[in-house]
Amino acid sequence: MLSAQATQQYFTELDRTMRQVVNSLPEDPPGFGVMLRYAMGWVDELDQPYNQATGKRIRPTLLLLCAEAAGGDWRSAAAAAAAVELLHNFSLIHDDIQDDSPTRHGRPTVWKVWGRANAINAGDALYTLAFVALESLSNTIPSETVIQVWRIFNATTLELTRGQHLDMRFEQQTSVTVDEYMSMIRGKSAALVAACAQTGALIATADEALAARYAEFGLNLGIAFQIRDDILGIWGDPSVTGKSAATDIISRKKSLPVLYGLSQSADLRAIYTRDPFSETDVSDAVAALDAIQARDYTQDSETAYYERALAALESANPQGKAADGLMQLVQALFQRAY
Amino acid sequence: MLSAQATQQYFTELDRTMRQVVNSLPEDPPGFGVMLRYAMGWVDELDQPYNQATGKRIRPTLLLLCAEAAGGDWRSAAAAAAAVELLHNFSLIHDDIQDDSPTRHGRPTVWKVWGRANAINAGDALYTLAFVALESLSNTIPSETVIQVWRIFNATTLELTRGQHLDMRFEQQTSVTVDEYMSMIRGKSAALVAACAQTGALIATADEALAARYAEFGLNLGIAFQIRDDILGIWGDPSVTGKSAATDIISRKKSLPVLYGLSQSADLRAIYTRDPFSETDVSDAVAALDAIQARDYTQDSETAYYERALAALESANPQGKAADGLMQLVQALFQRAY
Repeated sequence: MLSAQATQQYFTELDRTMRQVVNSLPEDPPGFGVMLRYAMGWVDELDQPYNQATGKRIRPTLLLLCAEAAGGDWRSAAAAAAAVELLHNFSLIHDDIQDDSPTRHGRPTVWKVWGRANAINAGDALYTLAFVALESLSNTIPSETVIQVWRIFNATTLELTRGQHLDMRFEQQTSVTVDEYMSMIRGKSAALVAACAQTGALIATADEALAARYAEFGLNLGIAFQIRDDILGIWGDPSVTGKSAATDIISRKKSLPVLYGLSQSADLRAIYTRDPFSETDVSDAVAALDAIQARDYTQDSETAYYERALAALESANPQGKAADGLMQLVQALFQRAY
Repeated sequence: MLSAQATQQYFTELDRTMRQVVNSLPEDPPGFGVMLRYAMGWVDELDQPYNQATGKRIRPTLLLLCAEAAGGDWRSAAAAAAAVELLHNFSLIHDDIQDDSPTRHGRPTVWKVWGRANAINAGDALYTLAFVALESLSNTIPSETVIQVWRIFNATTLELTRGQHLDMRFEQQTSVTVDEYMSMIRGKSAALVAACAQTGALIATADEALAARYAEFGLNLGIAFQIRDDILGIWGDPSVTGKSAATDIISRKKSLPVLYGLSQSADLRAIYTRDPFSETDVSDAVAALDAIQARDYTQDSETAYYERALAALESANPQGKAADGLMQLVQALFQRAY
């Protein structure tokens, strides 16, 4: 990644921009803004400062690195980076309601604290604030480019909702194909990463063809990253992932290795008819996956997307320290232990 | 209103624009777009044509009339009118989940048919499509104006969420002041009407000062309209309103006459401690309101906002047939029988 100092500059400006936007909400009624500040990880449920619940801000960092590597001033892209992070956090508020998830970043989710009705509304407000941030780009770049960036955001959010819809359908479907799964993660995970890279380059250069190369980089990076997550969900070292071993087997998650396994292994299909799983079922399932080299299959898939990402990045010819920073970010993402 | 022919032109173009935007959603996965088409009132839950469940499209009509009355070509504002109607329908999908409402326009609500999780996601998609429509304004007007309109939309949606938040809080509060109530209806009902009038004029002229007069017209019109709804909710003729008599008493809705009554009448406060209401309680409550002239109070308030709306409209000096159309629309809205 960039030097710690450069990254700190990014984070400071990003944080300032996001707080400015979120704090522009009127304080009438009291109790509205606190849900948004909580979702951003800035306060606890009583609106007292809290600093341990933010995500890693990978998406806005990627956006700013791409802006700089494409030859622009990252500061003029800060509003877009803030918008991406606000959009991501809005989607988490709504996803957590839809998935009935009680915790995130080690704390109760927004709906768990304030109820589903308030959380839906708070998510809508945070989504709108992402556009408030994005619109302020018009202070630094030409209006035509702002509108191009807005168009990318709209298409990306539609992809997020499409991916989320597919993901929810999968829970009802008895069988899901690998193709359906890839379509889902493109929408739910990779589209926003693609938008970050594309938007950063577009703000820097207003060059749509160059921005398309960055988009290709981001899309493949996002897919590869999700596939690696799927590998970690079965074969990850619990002491590194912080989750139990074979967590995705236990939760019956329809991840890539499982879908591949179900299509290839009668043994695995037989195990998946059992409900609930015993401990032996879980280790039998992993053994069935290993017997058909499901891990190799998944790693090969990850590697293919990873290499496509690097080829697209190379074709975009990133420049300067930010180019090094991009490579370091990519490598950091793929150094998570299996 | 405008001649039936002119209004029909508006509706035809509006419908065409909205369908184009909504149908731009990819059909993968099948079953995603149908929720949005259903919410718009175009299809039934099996995606078969259905034409009896749309709203009255008052907001986009107002927007187009204001564009024309301000001297513009209404066609260049059609994308904004479509955006307003899509935004309104998105907010209904989410409001219906938040309010646990099972029916709308005589049909089951989106969440009732597809479940809450899908309905949250469908609402997010429809909200995004409102921006897809709005962004297409850049085909007809300068980018700077598009961004101004976008800014108004963002502020308006934040007002919608703020008003909805207040409305939900009121259900938990034992006492609500008239001021709090007015703040709620500004956000929940009037802000979008204001945005319609303002946006129409801005698209036509790019004149912010003139657009502010139209905004003032729309805001006061929206408030007056909501207050009239509150009068109808207690004293409306059931054969005209299609609801039971004193429906807002039965549902304990904290409407303006009720809040005024609770602040002025010990009798009404005593009645409101009873739960549930008997039929006698309901007629006693109406009698208690009548004893303190709550209806006159509310009608005076309505009239004050109505006159402010007309004064603002007059100061904006609307022109041509559309000026007549605006007056006719306003009069039609206020001819609903008490």
